[in-house]
Amino acid sequence: MVYVIVVYDMEADRTHKMLKFLRRYLTHAQNSVLEGDVTEGDLEKIRSGVDDLLNPGESTIIYCVSSEKMVERSVFGEDPTADDQFL
Amino acid sequence: MVYVIVVYDMEADRTHKMLKFLRRYLTHAQNSVLEGDVTEGDLEKIRSGVDDLLNPGESTIIYCVSSEKMVERSVFGEDPTADDQFL
Repeated sequence: MVYVIVVYDMEADRTHKMLKFLRRYLTHAQNSVLEGDVTEGDLEKIRSGVDDLLNPGESTIIYCVSSEKMVERSVFGEDPTADDQFL
Repeated sequence: MVYVIVVYDMEADRTHKMLKFLRRYLTHAQNSVLEGDVTEGDLEKIRSGVDDLLNPGESTIIYCVSSEKMVERSVFGEDPTADDQFL
């Protein structure tokens, strides 16, 4: 397993496509940010799926860390994952 | 040094405040996403500064990894850091 954080910047009327796709694998952490533990196989599917979805001028960054234990995560203000708005 | 990724979700007319503050320490990687290597001292300043800036309903997540070498970063589509729009 690897821990990934995905951030995307797309046209406002197209973000729902990326969100729908990534939610198959990851947890919606914040507006345009998803994260989670995935297998290497799922990571490859995420990579190719993201590539297919983007239009020119749009971008996605995937940060990948070998284990969730490597990442210290601090939330300030409202924790969107604690809110059913994102679940 | 530690490697941090900061993502924030704020009212559209207030994001410039967070961006201006975080740019003192980090590189603007994408819309509402900054990252970079910082000292533990700067990390504390980032934490308290972020806390002060947020209004109710807004949120910021700070992901912290012990070294940049721990993070594999892949960009899909347009790489905003390669574009002077963000420098």
